[in-house]
Amino acid sequence: MASRDQAGSLVASAGRIGMVASVTINLAALGLYLRGRFLGNREKKAVAALTSTGKPRVTPDSLVNLDHGDPTMFEEFWRGAMGEQATLVIPGWQTMSYFSNLSGLCWFLEPGLEREVRRLHRLVGNAATEGYHVLVGTGSMQLFQAALYALCSPAPVGSDGPVSVVSPAPYYSSYPSVTDFLNSGLYRWAGDANTFDGDNYIELVCSPNNPDGGIRESILKSESGKGKAIHDLAYYWPQYTPITGMLAHDIMLFTVSKSTGHAGTRIGWALVKDREVAQRMSKYIELNTIGVSKDSQLRAAKIIAAVVDSYERQPSAATGDASLLFHFALRQMTRRWKALRAAVAASGIFSLPDEVAGFCTFTKDTMTANPPFAWLRCEKEGVEDLEGFLREHKIITRSGTKFGADRKVVRISMVDTDEAFNVFIDRLATMQ
Amino acid sequence: MASRDQAGSLVASAGRIGMVASVTINLAALGLYLRGRFLGNREKKAVAALTSTGKPRVTPDSLVNLDHGDPTMFEEFWRGAMGEQATLVIPGWQTMSYFSNLSGLCWFLEPGLEREVRRLHRLVGNAATEGYHVLVGTGSMQLFQAALYALCSPAPVGSDGPVSVVSPAPYYSSYPSVTDFLNSGLYRWAGDANTFDGDNYIELVCSPNNPDGGIRESILKSESGKGKAIHDLAYYWPQYTPITGMLAHDIMLFTVSKSTGHAGTRIGWALVKDREVAQRMSKYIELNTIGVSKDSQLRAAKIIAAVVDSYERQPSAATGDASLLFHFALRQMTRRWKALRAAVAASGIFSLPDEVAGFCTFTKDTMTANPPFAWLRCEKEGVEDLEGFLREHKIITRSGTKFGADRKVVRISMVDTDEAFNVFIDRLATMQ
Repeated sequence: MASRDQAGSLVASAGRIGMVASVTINLAALGLYLRGRFLGNREKKAVAALTSTGKPRVTPDSLVNLDHGDPTMFEEFWRGAMGEQATLVIPGWQTMSYFSNLSGLCWFLEPGLEREVRRLHRLVGNAATEGYHVLVGTGSMQLFQAALYALCSPAPVGSDGPVSVVSPAPYYSSYPSVTDFLNSGLYRWAGDANTFDGDNYIELVCSPNNPDGGIRESILKSESGKGKAIHDLAYYWPQYTPITGMLAHDIMLFTVSKSTGHAGTRIGWALVKDREVAQRMSKYIELNTIGVSKDSQLRAAKIIAAVVDSYERQPSAATGDASLLFHFALRQMTRRWKALRAAVAASGIFSLPDEVAGFCTFTKDTMTANPPFAWLRCEKEGVEDLEGFLREHKIITRSGTKFGADRKVVRISMVDTDEAFNVFIDRLATMQ
Repeated sequence: MASRDQAGSLVASAGRIGMVASVTINLAALGLYLRGRFLGNREKKAVAALTSTGKPRVTPDSLVNLDHGDPTMFEEFWRGAMGEQATLVIPGWQTMSYFSNLSGLCWFLEPGLEREVRRLHRLVGNAATEGYHVLVGTGSMQLFQAALYALCSPAPVGSDGPVSVVSPAPYYSSYPSVTDFLNSGLYRWAGDANTFDGDNYIELVCSPNNPDGGIRESILKSESGKGKAIHDLAYYWPQYTPITGMLAHDIMLFTVSKSTGHAGTRIGWALVKDREVAQRMSKYIELNTIGVSKDSQLRAAKIIAAVVDSYERQPSAATGDASLLFHFALRQMTRRWKALRAAVAASGIFSLPDEVAGFCTFTKDTMTANPPFAWLRCEKEGVEDLEGFLREHKIITRSGTKFGADRKVVRISMVDTDEAFNVFIDRLATMQ
């Protein structure tokens, strides 16, 4: 879930430089323009519903907003040949009941989605599903909160206050705010795991890490066994990092936002080993939203099925085969990281984390990691606030301070549209 | 939102009498059976996705579960002529971005849904929308929590602890559990508003009231102005009660679950007068689930549009015209309440709240109220626990104790399938 970024901060940051007022473009016209540009006649007929993002076009002179990890990079893929197989048709009478599977542990989980999630993990080999309970959430951020609830509730008699929630800095900027916004008596954000001392904790392990792409394992060891970990694996997919092993942690969180690019569908899932923890997580979602959109579950199932089916039809995929999702996305990410490193070299005032490579069991090839975010540091003297510096160049990023780091570093989305990415790269390369 | 009933309690109560173990029917086969029974060939082609509820068929001897307000009564309507107009097609590339409307107050609200919500209220005349902000939630239960957060946050300096959340008994059984499950320091369930004394409160006003169908207004008056109200108007639709006025409260909550019957779609909306309150509610949903399923928003927009369009095409609808949603549902509810009152009279051991009638500005006719739940009391001596008594007759209901009332009363859903309702009525009529 680690970049289902708070869009509000986008709105806020954009507001600061007066963008919101200018976003009064005609959205319908933009929609028609985009559709005319990308779709053939047959696909046009299938478009029964209008949608919009309200995001303005990016031009060489315009604002480029890379504050949030909006995965619009994937749209190009789904407008292609595979798109049709992922089209969902929902008749008016469908998905009316609250219930999806009364005999299952998670009564609101569509059996078809569970089936496709298990198929996907078997295909990619990134996480064990055998012996795990599958849960669905409204994005994996809801599942993160469900896991906090499940691990802290009911509070044991004589417990010493809220459980400490920690993560090693730099940590995903939403962890502190989401943990604390309701001022729960069950858990409390306690900051950087590196400086944490105690045994009553939940460690959030995000790997690859948002914001810096690092491969992580839990760093705290619990002597009493009270300490727990939640593994946020939103980015453990082959387009971002070599798949080096089948993970089998107690609680693992994933999302379609970052695997297939469907952020607006708001579907995440959890693989949970312990039955009681899974039941309590399910209870959280029951109390919080009485289940999860069935329409989106059916959609996610359809999308994942299209991905897995395509690989099964073509088991020995060639590197760079853009008709297959992970290969398309890997090619895009590789190209973008090359462009970014070249721009950083051309500019001379920035630095990036070292490039990491490894053998990927999914692509069966050695590959470099292509993190979903660039963790960009400014080495130039006099630039103390990099977010502010880039904003002067009309590039919106997120300051390191929000991730428990300093102001000379920022996080930049690598998964936005080609248009936005290219303008960003052009500007970065010329900064002195 | 007042009967987006915790399905978990269904699972729990069913488990007690061993139903869950027997729900191992073949869901796919059931799906095929139902589809074959209800659909013509043309519609069969449109069914691109399987869905299931996991609910077993109801037979004259089987368990009848009316614990939760699962609005499956409406399925018959949407399988009819109107269904096709509500069919949604979502291509693979759609709804990928997090954002729906960056220039709006609620950045994750699809503009099309907002438009249809406003049209629907103008058609029905049940709530003012002019001058109101529209917010979307994952069901109205999420919006209820968003409203609690918005009204209590940030806690004022020197505030005297959590705000008291109250509602006059009998109150919706989920209000206490949903208010308290995270043990928030911002708000705390404080029980029956009738016995509440203080000025730092939020009163939940559910009208028509879940569980007893009463028409309510807020009963607390705040001298300092600190006391607030949230109006839960999930059932203020013409099938349940005469529409007697265009309500214009500060915070009004609605849901498709009970208006059109699409509970699984998990779409609720709020009409909010104050801009800052609306912004904070939006912030809650951003932190909780980073927005709301776009697929379900597009679906809800399509469904509501079909309803409003049909009335606009036929402005002088005849009473009993089953091709129009509210007229279909009103006819169903009227028939069911007649059958229930007849069964109660035949049995002689039960009582119901008095029948209420009024002039409905929507149907332009005098009509009786048809609450979504029956609040059934047992008058027979020796029956102290009515939920237990009915369970012996394989009828699952919800005990009055969960609503702040006594054990001789239960809440029974009136919006389940015809099949379940008819078996329930047959059994009730013969109880002595």
